[in-house]
Amino acid sequence: MPKSTELTADRVAAAYDALMSLDRDRALEYWTEDVRFQMPGNHHQAGWHEGLDAYLASTAKLIEACGGVMKSETLDVLVDAGKGITLDVYRISGKRGHAPEGVSSPYDFLAIEGAHLLRWRDGRVYEGRGGLFGDGATRANLWWSPVGDDGRRTGI
Amino acid sequence: MPKSTELTADRVAAAYDALMSLDRDRALEYWTEDVRFQMPGNHHQAGWHEGLDAYLASTAKLIEACGGVMKSETLDVLVDAGKGITLDVYRISGKRGHAPEGVSSPYDFLAIEGAHLLRWRDGRVYEGRGGLFGDGATRANLWWSPVGDDGRRTGI
Amino acid sequence: MPKSTELTADRVAAAYDALMSLDRDRALEYWTEDVRFQMPGNHHQAGWHEGLDAYLASTAKLIEACGGVMKSETLDVLVDAGKGITLDVYRISGKRGHAPEGVSSPYDFLAIEGAHLLRWRDGRVYEGRGGLFGDGATRANLWWSPVGDDGRRTGI
Amino acid sequence: MPKSTELTADRVAAAYDALMSLDRDRALEYWTEDVRFQMPGNHHQAGWHEGLDAYLASTAKLIEACGGVMKSETLDVLVDAGKGITLDVYRISGKRGHAPEGVSSPYDFLAIEGAHLLRWRDGRVYEGRGGLFGDGATRANLWWSPVGDDGRRTGI
Repeated sequence: MPKSTELTADRVAAAYDALMSLDRDRALEYWTEDVRFQMPGNHHQAGWHEGLDAYLASTAKLIEACGGVMKSETLDVLVDAGKGITLDVYRISGKRGHAPEGVSSPYDFLAIEGAHLLRWRDGRVYEGRGGLFGDGATRANLWWSPVGDDGRRTGI
Repeated sequence: MPKSTELTADRVAAAYDALMSLDRDRALEYWTEDVRFQMPGNHHQAGWHEGLDAYLASTAKLIEACGGVMKSETLDVLVDAGKGITLDVYRISGKRGHAPEGVSSPYDFLAIEGAHLLRWRDGRVYEGRGGLFGDGATRANLWWSPVGDDGRRTGI
Repeated sequence: MPKSTELTADRVAAAYDALMSLDRDRALEYWTEDVRFQMPGNHHQAGWHEGLDAYLASTAKLIEACGGVMKSETLDVLVDAGKGITLDVYRISGKRGHAPEGVSSPYDFLAIEGAHLLRWRDGRVYEGRGGLFGDGATRANLWWSPVGDDGRRTGI
Repeated sequence: MPKSTELTADRVAAAYDALMSLDRDRALEYWTEDVRFQMPGNHHQAGWHEGLDAYLASTAKLIEACGGVMKSETLDVLVDAGKGITLDVYRISGKRGHAPEGVSSPYDFLAIEGAHLLRWRDGRVYEGRGGLFGDGATRANLWWSPVGDDGRRTGI
């Protein structure tokens, strides 16, 4: 019988679920307390978030910026259990909470795909990095920016 | 004898001096209470700042981000008093407060030139826009970003 | 009677008209042969174009990229004849030639405003710089990029 | 005995070696003739390169832009042979050919890390996407831009 912390695609999915729940105790089953995670781009949530609390706060900010609604999918997960490394392909979409349904401007609507690299120890992630395909980094910068398509400043 | 509010190059310079002093009463001699000013780029200080208080807060943030030291020069001022418009060429330089002297990375050192368009009424600015020459907008985005040259998150 | 090369708002407008005509001889009435002009941003037409031929080639590229149609307006012109400096506020709009009418994505539709600084000698421009208001520099970068909103590579 | 086209980390490394050799016949052992590969960012080499010839041309351009010298490392390779998917973590560094040794400006020196997603069929890649960690996309945009740190236009 496998240990419950065996490194599998399911465990990767469970780790993201725990993170997105914003439940610190649940997250601690999959992420170490001093995990560092690098968000790509140069917007105000970009860079290395040091510690689970900082990473949870940034995740909460993302959900908040989407008006509480956000779609996150894990498309493929590759595991090297021996090295303690996983790489997963993800897709995130969401519109800024203040924007109307169906908006397509990259200042208001985020649609990005990329790959996460996670490093695991004893069943928990201690380091992660998010990468972006295509022009996702510029799109993330515009989406996170305080300016809308018309140049007005918006919340968050 | 000219009215004290005559629109001249000197009055433009005095308006910026009053703004940089962060003294609200002094600023109100040159900027209306509901002035709107657009900062270029997509960083966290970009977009239309609505009202003198918002604009003063953003100016204070810039000075703070420079560790309290910032160099701002007005190079040329052109005035159309009849239309109530001025355009001035400016140069700003400053390093992030946490960065060492002599740093050259655009993530830490800002060196930009551009033109401001100001619209005046009764001796005071009611609308302004900042434009940037060269790759100044990307430089401003990097400088204002929370990531340093090494990807670590920094203050402000 | 004023010399025909007197520095006025009309002369600035005439200089841009001559440039946009792509007629080298006409352009030479207003721009020196070794004029240098800096296009803002970091896209493939950005930076200092050295010499009238390089500047005309870049202007031709802009018109071509718009499918031969492009809207350019001069909104305000301020002149300091003594110093030989003009500053004009401009607005450019255009869609990429391959894009459908009414497209709004910044990868396909350009809508920017900014200020040009021109330095004149004997009735001709010997140096110019284009500045951009708002998030115009990022918009120009996206518009000039070879990727469309869907990531496909496009011409020019 | 494994088929020579078995999907392994070694085969991934061999595929990149063949590509970087710019030898079309060698490359065809690992990449299909109609392979499509997406370069991240919005610079002039960004977007989907359709077909091996386009991808080889872009790779040649990268090597040329580095003055013929470029450092490319594969750090980790994860394989899902059943799904025909590989993900590899890469690091690329190089300076623009015209720039001096030791240059650190992101306009002249490229230092990026990211992940490639490759999709394989019968031992050959038919689709690939490059992702970038950190602020790599902006760095790639600056590096590929025709403007140097001083705003001058450079070759390529």
